[in-house]
Amino acid sequence: MTAAPGKDIEGRQRVVIEKLRPASDCGRFPVKRIVAERMTVEADVFTDGHDQIQAVVKYRTRAQRRWREVPMVPLGNDRWQGQFTVEEIDRYCYTVSAWVDPFLTWRSELTRRSGAADIRLALELGSQQVQQAAARARPVDARRLSHWAERLAGDGDLEARRALALDSDLLELMLRHADRSFASEYAPVQEVTVERERARYGAWYELFPRSFGGLRGAAEKLSYVSEMGFDVIYLPPIHPIGSSQRKGPNNALAAGPDDPGSPWAIGSPDGGHKSIHPELGTEADFDAFIATAARLDLEVALDIAFQCSPDHPYVREHPEWFSWRPDGTVQYAENPPKKYQDIYPFNFETDDWQALWRELLSVFLHWAERGVRIFRVDNPHTKPFPFWEWVIAEVRHRHPDTIFLAEAFTRPRVMHRLAKLGFSQSYTYFTWRNTKPELTDYALELAHTEGSEYFRPNLWPNTPDILSEYLQFGGRPAFITRLVLAATLSASYGIYGPAFELGESEPREPGSEEYLDSEKYQLREWDLERPESLRDLIARVNRIRRDNPALHLNRNLRFHEIDNEQLVCYSKATEDEDNVVLVVVNLDPHHRQGGWLTLSLNALGLTGDEPFQMHDQLGNLRLLWHGAHNYIDLDPGISPAHIFRLRRHLRTERDFAYYM
Amino acid sequence: MTAAPGKDIEGRQRVVIEKLRPASDCGRFPVKRIVAERMTVEADVFTDGHDQIQAVVKYRTRAQRRWREVPMVPLGNDRWQGQFTVEEIDRYCYTVSAWVDPFLTWRSELTRRSGAADIRLALELGSQQVQQAAARARPVDARRLSHWAERLAGDGDLEARRALALDSDLLELMLRHADRSFASEYAPVQEVTVERERARYGAWYELFPRSFGGLRGAAEKLSYVSEMGFDVIYLPPIHPIGSSQRKGPNNALAAGPDDPGSPWAIGSPDGGHKSIHPELGTEADFDAFIATAARLDLEVALDIAFQCSPDHPYVREHPEWFSWRPDGTVQYAENPPKKYQDIYPFNFETDDWQALWRELLSVFLHWAERGVRIFRVDNPHTKPFPFWEWVIAEVRHRHPDTIFLAEAFTRPRVMHRLAKLGFSQSYTYFTWRNTKPELTDYALELAHTEGSEYFRPNLWPNTPDILSEYLQFGGRPAFITRLVLAATLSASYGIYGPAFELGESEPREPGSEEYLDSEKYQLREWDLERPESLRDLIARVNRIRRDNPALHLNRNLRFHEIDNEQLVCYSKATEDEDNVVLVVVNLDPHHRQGGWLTLSLNALGLTGDEPFQMHDQLGNLRLLWHGAHNYIDLDPGISPAHIFRLRRHLRTERDFAYYM
Repeated sequence: MTAAPGKDIEGRQRVVIEKLRPASDCGRFPVKRIVAERMTVEADVFTDGHDQIQAVVKYRTRAQRRWREVPMVPLGNDRWQGQFTVEEIDRYCYTVSAWVDPFLTWRSELTRRSGAADIRLALELGSQQVQQAAARARPVDARRLSHWAERLAGDGDLEARRALALDSDLLELMLRHADRSFASEYAPVQEVTVERERARYGAWYELFPRSFGGLRGAAEKLSYVSEMGFDVIYLPPIHPIGSSQRKGPNNALAAGPDDPGSPWAIGSPDGGHKSIHPELGTEADFDAFIATAARLDLEVALDIAFQCSPDHPYVREHPEWFSWRPDGTVQYAENPPKKYQDIYPFNFETDDWQALWRELLSVFLHWAERGVRIFRVDNPHTKPFPFWEWVIAEVRHRHPDTIFLAEAFTRPRVMHRLAKLGFSQSYTYFTWRNTKPELTDYALELAHTEGSEYFRPNLWPNTPDILSEYLQFGGRPAFITRLVLAATLSASYGIYGPAFELGESEPREPGSEEYLDSEKYQLREWDLERPESLRDLIARVNRIRRDNPALHLNRNLRFHEIDNEQLVCYSKATEDEDNVVLVVVNLDPHHRQGGWLTLSLNALGLTGDEPFQMHDQLGNLRLLWHGAHNYIDLDPGISPAHIFRLRRHLRTERDFAYYM
Repeated sequence: MTAAPGKDIEGRQRVVIEKLRPASDCGRFPVKRIVAERMTVEADVFTDGHDQIQAVVKYRTRAQRRWREVPMVPLGNDRWQGQFTVEEIDRYCYTVSAWVDPFLTWRSELTRRSGAADIRLALELGSQQVQQAAARARPVDARRLSHWAERLAGDGDLEARRALALDSDLLELMLRHADRSFASEYAPVQEVTVERERARYGAWYELFPRSFGGLRGAAEKLSYVSEMGFDVIYLPPIHPIGSSQRKGPNNALAAGPDDPGSPWAIGSPDGGHKSIHPELGTEADFDAFIATAARLDLEVALDIAFQCSPDHPYVREHPEWFSWRPDGTVQYAENPPKKYQDIYPFNFETDDWQALWRELLSVFLHWAERGVRIFRVDNPHTKPFPFWEWVIAEVRHRHPDTIFLAEAFTRPRVMHRLAKLGFSQSYTYFTWRNTKPELTDYALELAHTEGSEYFRPNLWPNTPDILSEYLQFGGRPAFITRLVLAATLSASYGIYGPAFELGESEPREPGSEEYLDSEKYQLREWDLERPESLRDLIARVNRIRRDNPALHLNRNLRFHEIDNEQLVCYSKATEDEDNVVLVVVNLDPHHRQGGWLTLSLNALGLTGDEPFQMHDQLGNLRLLWHGAHNYIDLDPGISPAHIFRLRRHLRTERDFAYYM
């Protein structure tokens, strides 16, 4: 009926460990870190009465058997903290263990004791404790401890013996050989997924190879992309495109004979998710594309969209993976009254779901074996959550350095669940956050709420699906504003080009977010050399990103007050405050805006006593400031943003030259 | 290495259930409710894609095998809610179950379909679903469902069949017979401890029987206590007191031959924790005391202090339950340089801890069998946490209506842990919260943070250990202020009398919180009939508490702005807003204070359009207010507080008389 002491309960396990952080959903999911990052683990740790305790963080990779340990230190109010560094791309386990340490209690009481009899008795008791520790220790330490025990119990001068008892060498020995038989350990053990840096930090460029003549033509444009400073080149699906129900330009229901169709209508007699569209090139072309990219320090990201055109080989080979309607046709995607007859979704409730899962896994593995380690997953929120948790784990089991970006434009809880299940990054609502309160609230949510432990943002000003109203109406300044915001609010961001740098801003129709003559349905010719191209500005922004490690992080974002609703100001600093970046953006693409800024000086590592220089990396302006209150104005016609780097040390007459 | 689909994973279990609330420490501990209260359970519930879902709260008592269910409703943003009522003093289990419901999805799509072919196909599919449900249903419903299936698939008019398909009777049948084979269920199952109302709401009075001639004399004073409107009469330990190391008046190290000693130095040759001190009376006197109390609607609370005087029979009979020092003496309580030689703590780390636990359990059971159902536990934070969880469960297993009050004047985490482990109530920091920000912050923390799910406060203006500085220096108004605050901020409160109502305010020495000539060490004579006694005022406050159910609750506390730092204003309302109490207290015992109040009208169930009457239950003043802004002033010489009851309906000329 109730628990039995000695059987279900060990009554001498007296230390309580509560509220271990970080933890996602009570330990159901791992949190996330990047290789070489520090894990700071905290917990409430305490025991009954006045006894002193020791606590450690235990950690290991999942494959290791032996735990490593780091001591925790009390922060006050029974909160303890310990830190370790995650060194490998792997999944680590961690927990907290703590125990009552009678020697620490005894030692602290000894300092406060008065009266010879009392001290003598205490020393005798202490000697016993040390002798017991000797029995637990290996020979070398055991001998040292026995020696200490003898000296404590000896009949030398009392105060001299007390001083001996308080010796830090003895303390260190005793801490090492503490009796941990009744140590408590926090359950369940927590996990942290450790990924490579690109999982958090990177600049992405999306491009349709077919507009450049396929993979070979696109490979020739990679230097253009690389010169702009991008890290990842992301390709929409490169597979054969179905011809049944193919869509024409601007999503027309009927395609003409030369219309190429949507790359997301995957599968034709030429093959499915593991094949390359013949119109894009050969497998050799693909390998060459990857190799060229690698030479230019670009990593290729592939789009994985788990859906089929009616012509996909799966439809014929695995009819059991689709839903069939009473009239004997396959259920296409629909959201009545809308119909997407060119797309057959998989039926994940099929009795044959296990085979379906294994086949979809093999798609990832196929491309991973060709060298792809970044996957941008299309609409993951329309496939079962258990599938993603499983498939991501399976891929990482074989290729631990694989990065997954979730194209989860969906409701907040769903986005977060996908992030918890293993996606390295996620698309966000940034695209629709334009005003100062919207941007501030959302960026703070991404950077500072519990979700920041597992949800890493990737901000996109535009995508082939989304030409935001802000870009439609704001002209060139709007493009620059959104670029700077994306590139500095988040460690990862991306643009869909060349539509972005060429300022493409015409929607298919008023009120639509679709591009007119979208590349999703037709080939486009882009004049990359147009003088108004933003390519140089983009290159500059990406250079600033590379030069400033503060911009490689997300959780260091701080906003600063500025008394104009069209101006936002925020900063990022590295932990050592060696690199501090302050960004000011004018959100109004049409008017010059000015305002008084109230800096949170301590967020910038400043005390307020010193002058400092703000060096605009975008326009090369240098401002000499002193204190929190400073005036800023920004003319969108010139530049809608400053990206300042803080120069803390200003030379004075003593240096015989101004500014570093 | 990784999880296997079909074995470790059921891929068709597509609904996610997250963030179930209430939950204490991820379900490690039960939350708490009172019999007949409503449990409101919430969770994030969602699935992939656009399919519709159903969700239910499942609940049962621990002994029941069958779950009961209540449907959940969506609150928006994927948050769902369901409610049930806890009907018994018991421990209940609850969780959430949810599943994808294809019929709901189908039904919603059907309303949006156009085109005859499309609708016809959909009706055919719907008919199949209904037929499948028939196969799951018992005969009566199965027949009804089959009939529906036939009508849907029939060849009647299409729109007529669509209307049929949307019939609410069909919906109800289909919801009842949903396919739940792949339902998700939240794990772990959560628990809620359901106690009787006194666990949350009650007025306590502490009294030393020996100052009234023992149990018989004290029994004669019970009508005095009852007339003041108290619910619980709480006695310090009533056991034999040791004579070794006995303390004299004002904690003097040596006691005189007639000094009675501290009731917390438990145990003498006359017996221990299960005996009654011969100087207090016999077991029959005790039974009579309980019976008299019961006749006066007073319940007796006993003090359980698990520690021993050196003369306690346990020391002789169970030396293994104590710590022995190297000199062969028992380790007394100490916090060097302080020594408490009259107190031997148990050594809970003894190898014989299981026997010790069982013996201590038998102490509770001994008094429970004599009719005691409320225990005030002395210093629970100096005994191991696992012991409390076990012993409280064991006592409740036999006597489910037992209430435990933790005298846990200790650090916040420790107090909360004890509350989680099963203590019904706890002492608080109220005693040291005197200023407006202190009181506001602390009261809000008690009422509205996560802890309010398991931590129930009992506020004490004074105890035999604590005569606060505020009472020492504030005179009569300070006593009234603290009484009103305790009695209205918390559903449970208590005073140590007659010291309180007689305004005892002399400390043992300046800077001390100990009473001069404390009853802890000596007998006191109290003149209960002194004209300045607060007994009538206390009676009035307790009457107000009984008359106003809003004051029986804790989590309904709301503060209102008032522009004077010496004035606090707060309200409590029942859920139906039938009973609304507004309290205004002047914290300055020396000066009249006035200020403008800004009521949060919606917290009072007011719209702002109507006039309303504030009827002071303490002074019988009636104020006619309209809107949020009202002026209040309080002269501590007259009364430092108002306890208003809101009279919402004001009669007008249409009623032919003013005010109800």
